[in-house]
Amino acid sequence: MTETRYVYSFGDGLAEGRADLKSLLGGKGANLAEMTTLGLPVPPGLTITTDACRAYWRDGEGLLEVLKAEVMPARELLEQRMGAKLGDAANPLLVSVRSGAAISMPGMMDTVLNLGLNDATVEGMATLTNNPRFAYDSYRRLLQMYSSVVMGMHGDVLEQLLERKKEGEGVRIDAELSLDALKALVDIFKNKIFESTGRAFPQDPLEQLWGAIRAVFRSWNNRRALDYRNAQQIPHDLGTAVTIQAMVFGNMGETSATGVAFTRDPNTGEGYFFGEWLPNAQGEDVVAGIRTPRALNMESGALEEDETLETCMPEAYAQLSQVRTTLETHYRDMQDIEFTIQQGRLWMLQTRTGKRSPAAEIRLAVDMVAEGLITEREALLRVRSTTLEKLMHPRINPNAERTVIANGLGASPGAATGAVVFTSEDAVEWAGRGEPVLLVRRETSPEDIAGMIKSQGILTARGGMTSHAAVVARGMSKPCIVGCRDLEIDTNKRELHVRGTVVREGDILTIDGAEGTVMLGSVETIRPEPSEDVAQLMSWVDQHRRLSVRTNADTAKDCKTARDFGAEGIGLCRTEHMFFNDNRILAVREMILADDEAGRRRALEQILPMQRDDFREIFRVMNGLPVTIRLLDPPLHEFLSHSDDDVTAMANHLGLSTEAVAARYRDLTEVNPMLGHRGCRLGLTYPEIYEMQVRAIIEAAIEVQREGATVIPEIMIPLVGHHRELEMLRELVTGTADSLISRAKISLPYTVGTMIELPRACLTADTIVESADFFSFGTNDLTQTTFGISRDDCGRFLPLYVDMGILPGDPFVSIDPAVGELIRIATEKGRAVKPDLKVGICGEHGGESASIRFCHSVGLDYVSCSPFRVPMARLAAAQAALEESSS
Amino acid sequence: MTETRYVYSFGDGLAEGRADLKSLLGGKGANLAEMTTLGLPVPPGLTITTDACRAYWRDGEGLLEVLKAEVMPARELLEQRMGAKLGDAANPLLVSVRSGAAISMPGMMDTVLNLGLNDATVEGMATLTNNPRFAYDSYRRLLQMYSSVVMGMHGDVLEQLLERKKEGEGVRIDAELSLDALKALVDIFKNKIFESTGRAFPQDPLEQLWGAIRAVFRSWNNRRALDYRNAQQIPHDLGTAVTIQAMVFGNMGETSATGVAFTRDPNTGEGYFFGEWLPNAQGEDVVAGIRTPRALNMESGALEEDETLETCMPEAYAQLSQVRTTLETHYRDMQDIEFTIQQGRLWMLQTRTGKRSPAAEIRLAVDMVAEGLITEREALLRVRSTTLEKLMHPRINPNAERTVIANGLGASPGAATGAVVFTSEDAVEWAGRGEPVLLVRRETSPEDIAGMIKSQGILTARGGMTSHAAVVARGMSKPCIVGCRDLEIDTNKRELHVRGTVVREGDILTIDGAEGTVMLGSVETIRPEPSEDVAQLMSWVDQHRRLSVRTNADTAKDCKTARDFGAEGIGLCRTEHMFFNDNRILAVREMILADDEAGRRRALEQILPMQRDDFREIFRVMNGLPVTIRLLDPPLHEFLSHSDDDVTAMANHLGLSTEAVAARYRDLTEVNPMLGHRGCRLGLTYPEIYEMQVRAIIEAAIEVQREGATVIPEIMIPLVGHHRELEMLRELVTGTADSLISRAKISLPYTVGTMIELPRACLTADTIVESADFFSFGTNDLTQTTFGISRDDCGRFLPLYVDMGILPGDPFVSIDPAVGELIRIATEKGRAVKPDLKVGICGEHGGESASIRFCHSVGLDYVSCSPFRVPMARLAAAQAALEESSS
Repeated sequence: MTETRYVYSFGDGLAEGRADLKSLLGGKGANLAEMTTLGLPVPPGLTITTDACRAYWRDGEGLLEVLKAEVMPARELLEQRMGAKLGDAANPLLVSVRSGAAISMPGMMDTVLNLGLNDATVEGMATLTNNPRFAYDSYRRLLQMYSSVVMGMHGDVLEQLLERKKEGEGVRIDAELSLDALKALVDIFKNKIFESTGRAFPQDPLEQLWGAIRAVFRSWNNRRALDYRNAQQIPHDLGTAVTIQAMVFGNMGETSATGVAFTRDPNTGEGYFFGEWLPNAQGEDVVAGIRTPRALNMESGALEEDETLETCMPEAYAQLSQVRTTLETHYRDMQDIEFTIQQGRLWMLQTRTGKRSPAAEIRLAVDMVAEGLITEREALLRVRSTTLEKLMHPRINPNAERTVIANGLGASPGAATGAVVFTSEDAVEWAGRGEPVLLVRRETSPEDIAGMIKSQGILTARGGMTSHAAVVARGMSKPCIVGCRDLEIDTNKRELHVRGTVVREGDILTIDGAEGTVMLGSVETIRPEPSEDVAQLMSWVDQHRRLSVRTNADTAKDCKTARDFGAEGIGLCRTEHMFFNDNRILAVREMILADDEAGRRRALEQILPMQRDDFREIFRVMNGLPVTIRLLDPPLHEFLSHSDDDVTAMANHLGLSTEAVAARYRDLTEVNPMLGHRGCRLGLTYPEIYEMQVRAIIEAAIEVQREGATVIPEIMIPLVGHHRELEMLRELVTGTADSLISRAKISLPYTVGTMIELPRACLTADTIVESADFFSFGTNDLTQTTFGISRDDCGRFLPLYVDMGILPGDPFVSIDPAVGELIRIATEKGRAVKPDLKVGICGEHGGESASIRFCHSVGLDYVSCSPFRVPMARLAAAQAALEESSS
Repeated sequence: MTETRYVYSFGDGLAEGRADLKSLLGGKGANLAEMTTLGLPVPPGLTITTDACRAYWRDGEGLLEVLKAEVMPARELLEQRMGAKLGDAANPLLVSVRSGAAISMPGMMDTVLNLGLNDATVEGMATLTNNPRFAYDSYRRLLQMYSSVVMGMHGDVLEQLLERKKEGEGVRIDAELSLDALKALVDIFKNKIFESTGRAFPQDPLEQLWGAIRAVFRSWNNRRALDYRNAQQIPHDLGTAVTIQAMVFGNMGETSATGVAFTRDPNTGEGYFFGEWLPNAQGEDVVAGIRTPRALNMESGALEEDETLETCMPEAYAQLSQVRTTLETHYRDMQDIEFTIQQGRLWMLQTRTGKRSPAAEIRLAVDMVAEGLITEREALLRVRSTTLEKLMHPRINPNAERTVIANGLGASPGAATGAVVFTSEDAVEWAGRGEPVLLVRRETSPEDIAGMIKSQGILTARGGMTSHAAVVARGMSKPCIVGCRDLEIDTNKRELHVRGTVVREGDILTIDGAEGTVMLGSVETIRPEPSEDVAQLMSWVDQHRRLSVRTNADTAKDCKTARDFGAEGIGLCRTEHMFFNDNRILAVREMILADDEAGRRRALEQILPMQRDDFREIFRVMNGLPVTIRLLDPPLHEFLSHSDDDVTAMANHLGLSTEAVAARYRDLTEVNPMLGHRGCRLGLTYPEIYEMQVRAIIEAAIEVQREGATVIPEIMIPLVGHHRELEMLRELVTGTADSLISRAKISLPYTVGTMIELPRACLTADTIVESADFFSFGTNDLTQTTFGISRDDCGRFLPLYVDMGILPGDPFVSIDPAVGELIRIATEKGRAVKPDLKVGICGEHGGESASIRFCHSVGLDYVSCSPFRVPMARLAAAQAALEESSS
């Protein structure tokens, strides 16, 4: 015996595992144990832990020896429970060997079914079941799976031999092959395997078993699993469990079937039993999408009564419905289940928390609170904050003109437009060039995962709502249509035909993943209105959070949107975006190209009224809420265009020679603009620019306040690295502002603070705070300087870093711990001097849930994010507070 | 009475101040007090403290009212001591009002002499001295100084009236003007002052006094004082003291004189009394260099016996020699003194520690130890470490061909070559364009300071060894020749004539500031051999320091130089400099432009033997000492040249189209290369590059070790920000190295460490250290990222920052405290995990004395600097240890 326990058995209503051992047994193993204990019909089996997988990757092959001491007795227990033995020709036990990680990775890792068959036991099976055709069909399936999964052959090799056999026999589908044909195929397969791999297919079922266990372990780190984990930000060190389970057969004739179901509709969240099934089939036939399955019942979209399981096998269906209720009551969440009916008898093969569309996620949470199944608090913690953001995904404008060329199953909602590509490789390549693409496939398989990640949306000709494409797309929240039967796809020619229309590679299509409609060209989209479910959920959110949520918005329109979404102020209003406006960019350039302060001041006089107008509109919209305005930040050359035409136009406008203007342009060019003459460095070298901006802000504030509104301006100085910078600029700001306010004979409280976005600012925050009323972390620049990485240039190595596991994720998406450490240091140093200092964050991270959790944990006052992320940020803030109070 | 004491009196052998109150009384005031107490002949007076100056700048004019309560009683005491009264027509007291800061700023601030004269007292003086000509000459001098210093008139206005008067009278020098002419000039001056300023010259001596005090206070922040302090890195908040002292007159006829002397030769350090004097003159006549003074004695360079003070005034000279001995014994250092002889009687007006040339600084320290005047320890602390660096200044190669066109006084040693400019403004402008310039002036004045700072060297036609140009140049350690009488300078025409040769603006000249020779064109220079004095000093240095000193060197030649200078290893060998070598840059570019790894490997195979040869040479030179080699750091595009010719050449070489190569070039361009694809990011994305470099290092090491030498290679990975980067690259390095070493069947210990040059690396040093045998701080990049400032782009704001007092100095020169904080954090985190971790620094700061002191204080093991700075770094390290043990 090893000290660590590696094997957990289950069967006959008894199980050594439980649902909460998911990280040890994988989701599949844990839930099989749980269902066994619940008294549900589960074929007995055993699960090898993820610890064993991790040990395998650490220690290598030796671990398999260690495992034997535990697997062998568990196998014996399984043989007793089944009254059959591995390799016993008279009464053979067949098993499946399946992977199963703590976090579901559908189809990414390997599985072997029908293990235990060999030249002897196949005959035993034939006799026992009185169905030699079934026995030989199972054997040829084992040969196909085993040779590809364990022995490393390309799956196509045997698949082609199968196709050739069918052609030879003149049949269309596998099930039509005769017994003789199947027997011949088994021989052909065995020969081909030997020829291709130099090794014979192992006749010893134990050798088969250990080969399969090793293969599942190894499949944890195959390419598609790595890609999937990177895309889903799943850690690479979890490992997979291996579940060995007695086989049951959905392909044992017309009283057998297999299916996949959700306890509620995973797409809409509606409360009916939703699923698909196939008579006389094995599970992978449904999942792989090769045969288009039938609906479980009319609610699941069946077109004819007599296709449903409810009608065809009413007893099994009734039992399944009972299981559905048991599972939902027990797990208190919507479940995704797999079942097999073997000669009329129902077997449960899997249950797991069902993936769901964003809309369903909200609806399920809200409905289950209404049903008393879960609490409000649970509902809030269960909805992922990113889901709210996804719900803001664009949809097709109902009023937009469109040409619908086909209809399929709307498998994952949202609208997507892109250039059509026909292979995963092409998707990666085109997307790499910056082209939005739509991946069109007959069906998808795990090999397609890289291309699916890169695509705007996915469209398949085959498969149902639980096919690979549908499940993966829903998990990624990418629009997807499956089972679009009218598509005739010619991958070699890179074109598809649909009802007479030819669509070639690169042609633009739009799909509506909710409706299932395929449209020509690009079709106008709109942002959706939040649903009643969302409104209900949000009504709970604000009672729990401590963090305020503000928005980053530069225009009155964006401010309005954000306010509608519940923003409690503006955390970042960038004044430079206003500079690009057509009618003012000339004045801005004139200012930049001026020879001296007088020239700059003349140009700034033209810009002043325009900026004042902008601020006035914003202050009106934000009546009663704080508005943080950042003074000019980017290097001045960003406002110049270096095209010859622009230079000439500017020279004409200024009455200067083209050469003089071009020279000045060159003069302003910087080697590292990110680290150049920008931010407060501009304010100190050209104080007249900041002076104009402060003037515009305060004059607008005075005007709007006179209209009766409450204006709360917060003036923010960017890129401060040394306390003297802020000290001097604060003087400039208050000098300008106070004289305007006192002249206006009005009371207008305003504050002056700074962006903290340089390591030096964090380390010296105790001195900087002396001149600051507030801090706002600019985490984009802070991440750039802390890492020494330019966002503009990291494309050649950062994705690779994530891929190689150097970084757990992109630090520009979620706050890196070292950057977080600087935020903590700065907050502590600032508050040590001014305990009431208001501290917020306005970088991109302000709209990302893990970062929001971090901001909550270090005691920030607010986060600020783009308008459409405001609801998710509110939820994430509530979740952070709830998690804190429960820990 | 105020609480702070603002006034300190001295006179009659009694003084309220002392020499160690320099920061309060200024150097001048403190030393006048000290000399008074020593019993030397000092005219009585009083000193207003620097506290008062700072209070003036803080509180404004009101401070002058506060001062009155102390100045008035002190004035009365002075009047008692002198038996004369300010404004008493019968027996007038005349005073000088002089500035004096804690750190000498020669000529940068203002002075008023002869204060107390007015229309009434001038007559009293005439009667008292029986010398009306002297009285009126003093009065016109007061009018000139006062109007310019206190009343803000341009000095030229009255100077031109004086010149016109001399022309009118047909005389050549001031002293030839008749009494009547002087009386007329006084009237002309008074009228002109009223006309120009709208105010009359104040007849009230008290009004004169307060005006002068205010003017001295204000001169602390005049332009040239600010420039000088910036150049010398003197803090801007020290303030100046004001010393009011009874006037004595060197211009009272032929038994009167004035002079300036050094107790030893400030240029060579030799032990004779060295100085200059002028008969019948006031002090400023010597300092301003308007009249060329005579040597004090034959040792000081007099050409004729009868010109020396020793011969002309033997009694006064003997007394002065006695004073020289008293001062040196008392101050235990070489003194720079000012004296006046009034009608045969010696008066001391100033003593201060004498500025000295780098060579003299060393010699004085070594000689004084030999004489028993100071201890070795004092000698080590007294020599500035930068002096050692300056001694390494290039000199003219004695074998070089040259065309000498003139000879002057070698006032500050070293060779300088530059384009001739004739004004300070031109010097600033030309140098701003990157042109090395030589400033040529008739004489320099404090107005020229900005241009002097920017020049390679200074050449003046007039002035002696103690003239403004000589003193300032020596202070800046810039080559300087003064009193080059053959030069005829026409500033308007921008040309100079010398013995028939015409030199125009922009022509190149070379000066030898030791020999005093002016040469045409540029002349070859050499690095000097260290003197015996230096060898003596360095023999003391190494007994005291704890820090090791290494060098940054990339070639065997530089390594040899550094080893000769006492380097104890290589702290930074940059492998990329080798890449630029003519015969390999093509292979390097081929590698960069390769499409794939195979292509890169082919190109790297060509580079490998060349790199190996380089390392072999370096290892041979560094036998027995550690050699830290940094793997490739800069972004690859730095190795490409974007000129059309180069692109075409490369395309031909590679057999590709010009367009393809140009496209690849564009592809590699980065927005912020400093933060881009460089350092270990290259090593991780193109591991074959680092593999080749490690191979070259280890193969070279094996070869040299087989020759019998001891090789200690330290392989350094640049730009690590995350511990996983180093972890993976360490594996790559050790994998490559170990297999080579084991194949060679040799024992070759080597270490693998990292540059710490990113804030993230500092903050996570505890994890990075797991894979590091050593840390080496790259403070250039660390300063850039901590500040968010690009060295390449900060020219438009960083100088201004220093100017405006935002930063105390350039953080790329001396380590900034916040950057230092990161260094401390990283060192502590690293050593917490590995207590014996070797930690060094290899940025530019490694050769700067304040930074070296910092490195000592945080417990680093070594600093590394350029070869020529090694001796200074050794001294600075010893000083840091000595200061620590004495504190």
